[in-house]
Amino acid sequence: MEKTPQPKPWIKRVSLDITPPSLKDNTADVDRLVKAIKKSQGSKEVSVDFPMIKRLPERLREYDYRVDAVLFRDHGIWHLIDIFPPKQEKNIFGLAVDVGSSTVVTQLIDLSTLVIRDETSFHNPQIEMGTDILTRIHFAAQKGGLEKLQTVLIERLNQEIKHLAHKHAIEIDSIVGMSAAGNTTMTHLLLGLDPHWICREPYIPVINKPELIKGSAFGLMINPCAPVLVFPNVGSYFGGDLIAGILASGMTRQNEISFLVDVGTNAEVVIGNCDWLMACAGAAGPALEGGVTNMGMMAGPGVIDKVAIDPDTCEIKIRTIDNRKPVGICGSGLIDLVAQLFLARMIDLRGKYQAERCGGHLREIDDINHLVIVPLEESGTGQLLTLSQIDIEGLIRSKAAMYTILTTISNTVNIPMKEISHFYVAGTFGSYIDPVSAITIGMIPDLPLETYIPLGNTSLKGAGMALQSAEAREEIFQIRDQITYLELNVNQEFMNLFSAAKFIPHTDRSLFPSVNPVGTERA
Amino acid sequence: MEKTPQPKPWIKRVSLDITPPSLKDNTADVDRLVKAIKKSQGSKEVSVDFPMIKRLPERLREYDYRVDAVLFRDHGIWHLIDIFPPKQEKNIFGLAVDVGSSTVVTQLIDLSTLVIRDETSFHNPQIEMGTDILTRIHFAAQKGGLEKLQTVLIERLNQEIKHLAHKHAIEIDSIVGMSAAGNTTMTHLLLGLDPHWICREPYIPVINKPELIKGSAFGLMINPCAPVLVFPNVGSYFGGDLIAGILASGMTRQNEISFLVDVGTNAEVVIGNCDWLMACAGAAGPALEGGVTNMGMMAGPGVIDKVAIDPDTCEIKIRTIDNRKPVGICGSGLIDLVAQLFLARMIDLRGKYQAERCGGHLREIDDINHLVIVPLEESGTGQLLTLSQIDIEGLIRSKAAMYTILTTISNTVNIPMKEISHFYVAGTFGSYIDPVSAITIGMIPDLPLETYIPLGNTSLKGAGMALQSAEAREEIFQIRDQITYLELNVNQEFMNLFSAAKFIPHTDRSLFPSVNPVGTERA
Repeated sequence: MEKTPQPKPWIKRVSLDITPPSLKDNTADVDRLVKAIKKSQGSKEVSVDFPMIKRLPERLREYDYRVDAVLFRDHGIWHLIDIFPPKQEKNIFGLAVDVGSSTVVTQLIDLSTLVIRDETSFHNPQIEMGTDILTRIHFAAQKGGLEKLQTVLIERLNQEIKHLAHKHAIEIDSIVGMSAAGNTTMTHLLLGLDPHWICREPYIPVINKPELIKGSAFGLMINPCAPVLVFPNVGSYFGGDLIAGILASGMTRQNEISFLVDVGTNAEVVIGNCDWLMACAGAAGPALEGGVTNMGMMAGPGVIDKVAIDPDTCEIKIRTIDNRKPVGICGSGLIDLVAQLFLARMIDLRGKYQAERCGGHLREIDDINHLVIVPLEESGTGQLLTLSQIDIEGLIRSKAAMYTILTTISNTVNIPMKEISHFYVAGTFGSYIDPVSAITIGMIPDLPLETYIPLGNTSLKGAGMALQSAEAREEIFQIRDQITYLELNVNQEFMNLFSAAKFIPHTDRSLFPSVNPVGTERA
Repeated sequence: MEKTPQPKPWIKRVSLDITPPSLKDNTADVDRLVKAIKKSQGSKEVSVDFPMIKRLPERLREYDYRVDAVLFRDHGIWHLIDIFPPKQEKNIFGLAVDVGSSTVVTQLIDLSTLVIRDETSFHNPQIEMGTDILTRIHFAAQKGGLEKLQTVLIERLNQEIKHLAHKHAIEIDSIVGMSAAGNTTMTHLLLGLDPHWICREPYIPVINKPELIKGSAFGLMINPCAPVLVFPNVGSYFGGDLIAGILASGMTRQNEISFLVDVGTNAEVVIGNCDWLMACAGAAGPALEGGVTNMGMMAGPGVIDKVAIDPDTCEIKIRTIDNRKPVGICGSGLIDLVAQLFLARMIDLRGKYQAERCGGHLREIDDINHLVIVPLEESGTGQLLTLSQIDIEGLIRSKAAMYTILTTISNTVNIPMKEISHFYVAGTFGSYIDPVSAITIGMIPDLPLETYIPLGNTSLKGAGMALQSAEAREEIFQIRDQITYLELNVNQEFMNLFSAAKFIPHTDRSLFPSVNPVGTERA
């Protein structure tokens, strides 16, 4: 990743040199302050919001006309957020928020020093009104539904802000800006915009590029004049979280061509460089997030996140989070498990259990083969933990969908996989995936391992970058405008690619030279 | 007055050509609208207010994406006020308001045709909280005082708006802009800004140059996104009403030098041309508004507004408003009366009654000479209407103050009176003054009569102009920045000039060659 240049802030605190009023200079309070700001910024245009105007005379006098101004820049105009007495602690803060449909993550950033002071997360309380996006869109259509979806989120966010301010002993008013990235529906719900048409033909959002909005305009308890930057979207299915991801990856600041992939229920893929960007998204199936297997679950204590199988003894070694007794398996553990099963030849290239390799671990339950991963006596649930033939098929469909999407988009732009210089993996889930395992099952292309760069929560990182830097803020709109969105046509060609990818690692073994199950030799 | 060029509007309604959404073009609703506005205006920047964004998708669909947009321009950006279906009556309206301390005058302007559709006025309900500005400033300092002063005014204005809309069968939402001119205190109270420091050293307002404010931000019941242009002020004592007056007079669009005078309790005087402007204000005394004489009153039915005296018989002929029985005299009538008394030599150049000319009309009441203007049998009050020696002295002080202010400012800029090409008289009161009488008593300089141009309510006219025209709106800020404000120092020089002016017409008769009382010949 290229080094990000020292950011030029678009929210800042500046010391002002204000001449107190006298009979010789009867300039009004607001105009006097504006003049000092113009002087300090070498700017022609300064704007002061109406509610602020009402409070200024008293406060300027209280501080004896010795004040710092907190400003933000928009459309080339500096806008006053607040004034503070210069003696007060000088730091101002911003909040970057990743508005996820299940988890909301906040980052408290000291905008004076650019130090991240805290990072916290909470479950999105909208889950009560629907675990998935579609249910929430339908809930929003009920009487008062949209308001409720917005209110629970804003209230929970306000609670978090209050908590953060208390914890770090800062005033709510010193939180002078916020940025929020999320998928298109989530940012719509944050702003209280009706998501009705997002899921209905021709699938258009209310807005692609929101302007800065005052937090107080939608109930946010930060400084009332603080601007909120809500990330733009490309459309209903390509949201600001991905634009934040592209920003965070730095791929648009490089000549080399990179992939950015967000692995989840929806596989979201971007390819491009500083000159062009193409994106597409397709259903990869919930298997990748561990959502459908018998023992699948979200990462948490006791969840299997790493698996190793001895190719000689076929002994399965597992690692669980916090070393608790195993209770289930998460997506990255599942990818590991299936990769290891394949390398140990306990499954074949179609994913079918090989009885001669699995031995006593294999059980038939309701006519379906299950492999015992954790025996009863070691289980944390009091039950066997098994992986069924159907679970494997689900994972194979998901990984095949992912690989097919990657192939389709690289075919469309006519870039061979080997020309990809970086393969950025976005999202917390993606960070846990072992690329060796993912390559082994043929989910991602067989590129040199250093090509794979897990970036963690890029939605949050991008939000933080855009909050701190004028260039980064500008860049997200450039990124948005630059993206060509590729509609995935599930046509015969796609289905052919998909069929070929439904093997481990692939029907075309030459695409995965590094994958060699035990006892096999490459041709 | 120069012809005002065809105004370029800064509030306008435009027909849009919006492509309805389709699978081929999934641009969001707001961005789709913004794109169409940009195209129609050839503009790079278009802004849509947050509350408007919420309502747009439903309305765009309701109107089948065939809409007109109403826009206003600020800081080079076009802002959306509202959208209307194109079938609806196309006209949009604006409200120009003269916010007077005693009377508020409104003008309903059709912004599509620039036709003035109505003009109405009402008593400023703040009078209940104080007849004069100073009392209101003190009232504002009481708990809840400022809110009350603002609320009564806004509520009364809203009532008027409702009435106007009903009368002309227009929707409130089609009133898409407002401009308001008034003195500095009045515009502060309109906006709910604390006038506390206006009357306290060093006498500074909260704001000199308010930005456009949405009417909904301070409770105004016009279109919620309609901009309100509140006229700027030069300081506590030189308000937006006078800037509106300068705009309306056209004096800043001429090479010739003009005076603009607003005659009232405070005499407000501006001198200048297209290159420079100097202004000052001074107490002229309430006599000019008919406020102090025994029989003085505001213009109204039965009030004497015109007086003629036969120089041979000394018979006094009066005219009353609506030809009712006389009940009192207004300012313009008083100026007429004193001028006629002087021309008939019933008073001398000091204003003293001349018993030999006044004859039986003169009565001594409480040791003070009174001239009977209306005998008992003709009076509408059941009492004699008289003018006392003290009344005359009061008027002389007022007219002397006015003349001294005019002399002082013309001396300061070193422009002889005879170089004044236009003498604009602002204000409704000023329109009723007969310039011949005003010259006769030495209140205004002895210039050719065609020099005197009464303009009526220039505060309202200027407000209307700035609402209709981008150039005029810009001009008020240029005027504001151009004005040099002359602080009147009541020093020895001023007192000398004042003393010389306390004669009718003046100690220096050569200044008033046209004034010749009966039986006198010019030297």
